[in-house]
Amino acid sequence: GLGPGDPELVTLKALRLLRAAAVIAYPAPKGGDSFARSIAAEWISPAQREIAIPFPMRPGPPPAGLYDDAAASIAAALDVGDDVAFLCQGDPFFYGSFAPVFARLAPRYNVTIVPGVSSLVACAAAAATPLVPHDDTVTVIPATMPEAELARRLAGCDSAAIIKLGRHAAKVQKILAALGLLDAAIYVERASQPRERVAPLAEIDPALSHGARARVP
Amino acid sequence: GLGPGDPELVTLKALRLLRAAAVIAYPAPKGGDSFARSIAAEWISPAQREIAIPFPMRPGPPPAGLYDDAAASIAAALDVGDDVAFLCQGDPFFYGSFAPVFARLAPRYNVTIVPGVSSLVACAAAAATPLVPHDDTVTVIPATMPEAELARRLAGCDSAAIIKLGRHAAKVQKILAALGLLDAAIYVERASQPRERVAPLAEIDPALSHGARARVP
Repeated sequence: GLGPGDPELVTLKALRLLRAAAVIAYPAPKGGDSFARSIAAEWISPAQREIAIPFPMRPGPPPAGLYDDAAASIAAALDVGDDVAFLCQGDPFFYGSFAPVFARLAPRYNVTIVPGVSSLVACAAAAATPLVPHDDTVTVIPATMPEAELARRLAGCDSAAIIKLGRHAAKVQKILAALGLLDAAIYVERASQPRERVAPLAEIDPALSHGARARVP
Repeated sequence: GLGPGDPELVTLKALRLLRAAAVIAYPAPKGGDSFARSIAAEWISPAQREIAIPFPMRPGPPPAGLYDDAAASIAAALDVGDDVAFLCQGDPFFYGSFAPVFARLAPRYNVTIVPGVSSLVACAAAAATPLVPHDDTVTVIPATMPEAELARRLAGCDSAAIIKLGRHAAKVQKILAALGLLDAAIYVERASQPRERVAPLAEIDPALSHGARARVP
């Protein structure tokens, strides 16, 4: 786990392991740059072999065999005795794409999970707003859910962090407005990155929102 | 934010700032050692002045004036031109004790929040279990809540991470057993630390549990 984007939010352990690995693997959209790789770019050496795994960056079910193929390409490197560092943005087990690869590799190989700074806490830091007031509950909700489902979850929770906002900003704005919560919602985009943006969610043009998060107290 | 306990899970940014600060402040139980300080101990120099803030480590309302006094002692250092690094275990805004101090200092001083690896994701890594299956919701619930309240929250959520288990393990076991969820719950103690322990929650002796977490799929 490499954290939310700022290379300085990489942990000492992640840095040590990624420098020591013979092979670096990472998710990459087809034909695009890998965000996970960009976080670690300054530490990747030309002597390290790279495996770009063509993960889907769009919602919906992944292509058949994608995780099997990804696990197989990593296993092939492990089978010749190389260590592989799999780079994940954020934390590997917090809504990441590593879980299905891990499930395929863990029964046969020694896998160490290095937890990372999740986007959740990076957004709270960016917004200078504690994630949870006092000793209350916070629910993390993917905006990809159907509207009725999302509305039901938001109505029933104390604090909420809405992730994967992406192209769902209009839907989330509509639901929160109906619940009387829109004016309390904070929008955070690219937390910890150079073009980080924090704004009231009510002021966001859904057509322009970009892979962001909203926090609703 | 210094992460869950393993000094290698400190971020490069936290390390840079704590080394550069003239003054190091941290929560410390009265008469006891500060866990936050212990994470950073190897990097604290004798030339740095230290402010141990006697935070309550027990549940219940804090002593009157505690946060005012803590903020005042930090403000005194800032007022003479020193930078202060405030050490937090985990993440500063994820159920930490920094939020009330931040609220008092932020209006008058420049405060940078450095997000850290939260215990939440460190427990998932320790248990080698993704925190959330697929694109579902996860609710973080402090075990300190009254029993009826806790039962209501647990009955209504998809996945749950129960934090601040401490002396509440018996209560949580009872509630989860009644909901038919006890056998699915994983207990994690001292995630990322030398005496880390992962076990089925059902097997935990409540009298011996120690500041731990449970995850309920």
